[in-house]
Amino acid sequence: MALIVQKFGGSSVADAESIKRVARRIAHTKAEGNDVVVVVSAMGDTTDELLDLAGDITATPPQREMDILLTAGERISMALLSMAIHELDVDAQAFTGQQAGVITDTSYGNARIIDVTPSRIQRTLDDGAVAIVAGFQGVTQFTNDVTTLGRGGSDTTAVALAAGLGAAVCEIYTDVDGLFTADPRIVPSAQRIDRISTEETLELAAHGAKILHLRAVEYARRYQVPIHVRSSFSDNEGTLVIDNDEEGPMEHPLISGVAHDSSQAKITVVGVPDVPGSAAQLFEAVAAAGVNIDMIVQNVSVHHSGVTDISFTLPHEQGAAARTALEAMAAKHGYAEVKYDDGVGKVSLVGAGMRSHPGVSARLFSALYEAGINIEMISTSEIRISVVTRSEDLPEAVRAIHTAFELDATEVEAVVYGGTGR
Amino acid sequence: MALIVQKFGGSSVADAESIKRVARRIAHTKAEGNDVVVVVSAMGDTTDELLDLAGDITATPPQREMDILLTAGERISMALLSMAIHELDVDAQAFTGQQAGVITDTSYGNARIIDVTPSRIQRTLDDGAVAIVAGFQGVTQFTNDVTTLGRGGSDTTAVALAAGLGAAVCEIYTDVDGLFTADPRIVPSAQRIDRISTEETLELAAHGAKILHLRAVEYARRYQVPIHVRSSFSDNEGTLVIDNDEEGPMEHPLISGVAHDSSQAKITVVGVPDVPGSAAQLFEAVAAAGVNIDMIVQNVSVHHSGVTDISFTLPHEQGAAARTALEAMAAKHGYAEVKYDDGVGKVSLVGAGMRSHPGVSARLFSALYEAGINIEMISTSEIRISVVTRSEDLPEAVRAIHTAFELDATEVEAVVYGGTGR
Repeated sequence: MALIVQKFGGSSVADAESIKRVARRIAHTKAEGNDVVVVVSAMGDTTDELLDLAGDITATPPQREMDILLTAGERISMALLSMAIHELDVDAQAFTGQQAGVITDTSYGNARIIDVTPSRIQRTLDDGAVAIVAGFQGVTQFTNDVTTLGRGGSDTTAVALAAGLGAAVCEIYTDVDGLFTADPRIVPSAQRIDRISTEETLELAAHGAKILHLRAVEYARRYQVPIHVRSSFSDNEGTLVIDNDEEGPMEHPLISGVAHDSSQAKITVVGVPDVPGSAAQLFEAVAAAGVNIDMIVQNVSVHHSGVTDISFTLPHEQGAAARTALEAMAAKHGYAEVKYDDGVGKVSLVGAGMRSHPGVSARLFSALYEAGINIEMISTSEIRISVVTRSEDLPEAVRAIHTAFELDATEVEAVVYGGTGR
Repeated sequence: MALIVQKFGGSSVADAESIKRVARRIAHTKAEGNDVVVVVSAMGDTTDELLDLAGDITATPPQREMDILLTAGERISMALLSMAIHELDVDAQAFTGQQAGVITDTSYGNARIIDVTPSRIQRTLDDGAVAIVAGFQGVTQFTNDVTTLGRGGSDTTAVALAAGLGAAVCEIYTDVDGLFTADPRIVPSAQRIDRISTEETLELAAHGAKILHLRAVEYARRYQVPIHVRSSFSDNEGTLVIDNDEEGPMEHPLISGVAHDSSQAKITVVGVPDVPGSAAQLFEAVAAAGVNIDMIVQNVSVHHSGVTDISFTLPHEQGAAARTALEAMAAKHGYAEVKYDDGVGKVSLVGAGMRSHPGVSARLFSALYEAGINIEMISTSEIRISVVTRSEDLPEAVRAIHTAFELDATEVEAVVYGGTGR
């Protein structure tokens, strides 16, 4: 008997049949003697349909009203799921984010949870019922306004409730069997990861792995909530994201996996004066334009020319804003040219074991060299190496690295891969 | 400068274009210097679509969860309408029933408002913004659970807020120009009523006129809220539902209008023992089956036979339940037969002037006689006469009565008639 939080994404509750299947799983978990709290996302494409409705009204919707609109989606799915559980003669009650005590700041559209007061959920469990909670949504502390937590926010709702209730585990149900050593659509021999640390999961999520919401993993790390990522379409064990268990710190394998990200572009500013403060000026202007920079490379100035080139990567959709900001500076600061390149991709190797194993970089560069793939930029953390390549080389780069670090499975599992909802 | 509450039904906000048109009307009212509170229903067919979703899950949805589901509809329309008003550079904020302070009892699906505490709405008005409120929904007093007010509940939300805020008028927008002396689809010469008392409006609404929610009129009567029923498709004046104004009690015309109702059926229990208490037993059983009885006729027992016949009308959809209950009693109580007849219709003549004018009944019966229409049952109140006819005679009965009481317009206005949403 344990308290288990289960989160089901939009693809797991896309239609009546899916909702009934999820209800059976919940009833089964309950019948095994567990207390169950369920966090549910909006059904399938509901969120996109609501965005379309807003788009027919205005191109610039006020964010407060947008959050009211979007939270209608979970209201529908949570009510239907609760009905489906009742239909199996299991008592259940559905709750909004507000009723569940999910308190957030006032950053509409991307609010942060500042407190969780799930006393009503606890009473529901004490009464022997299943509690269904709307994911993705909360309420502001003093004004009781509805907020949303941003893309993937339901994962965060689930982990936050698991922390607040002291759950034994937070199960994140998706349409694949867990985290894989690489995207199985690109690397058919990718293997499911049995266990992984939150630190490595954060690196994978931050560098392109789409399976878990970054903020949910941060929350799990801070409050030591074990996450079990698994499929709602099978009974297979998934991936346990955990830092410690009763047996003490876990053994780290050298490498956990390979992530890739094709959503980045590269800007190169040519002819930046090689004097103190010029890079700071450049990046202050880019930051003021609301651009999130990932990797930065500054070439050493050659032949004492007095100028250098600075390259950085950024999300595709922020490319126009960054170029506009930089081109406005070009004349005053003497930049020769602002080059925009959206034909790049990034591959990242993540593993906590890197800390104690030199030679990982060398093996990675060598694997890419042997595959004939050129490296344009490099960045590293203690447990990650990322390189930027041509976007058309990205799939082959992922495969070459996966093979070089002996991550390929000897037997290939059948994997269905798709979106994870929010 | 006044405080005006405006309510828009589902057909007034059925799509993006309709929502924009409603937003322009609201902005115009605001620009004239008024404070504006808007109550909005779910868009068009949203409620039916949500009911279909629930129907795919279960035939017996728990009412609490059903109310959560249905309130998603207003969440969508209120957010979109607020966005559309912003688009016109007018400040607006959308509020749920809970945020607007609509407190109800716990009768899910058909909750009654027990208090309105619209302090947040008042603050929004004080800040110069338009307040948009979700119709049809409230929240329970102690548990903060979502409730719905039943069909037509948005009218009640609007009148309750108008009462709570001390509004000058509650404007109910629909797709016709107001209340008519008869349904214009049946009587093309029906005239729009300029003014009518709440008492007469209650009688019309209770006997088949579909334009206003009964409970909303009761609320307006109790709290003396003037209601202005008008079209969201034109700028025409509509019908003012009001009991008094500054000039003292209004003059009552003899007759306000003719309502009809084709949703009733008739049950006749043949051979009921003519002894004290037998009628009471019969109607107790029918009430226990959850049946709402409208008219009752008991024939005098003929020829000292010791038995009599009792007929009553009831809604079609409760016919099966009533028959089952009565047939179960037949043997024990000696009923000869339980006859069910769904080929009936009811026409009602309503007018506060009846109180002081004898002869109204005679003129009505005479009109039906001349039209060759047989009367099956009769019931009256102080200001209403209702008769049951064959359902195929109902339209002609309405027209004959309308003409006999000189309600026909000399010039026929063009009227578009449709549903009113909820």
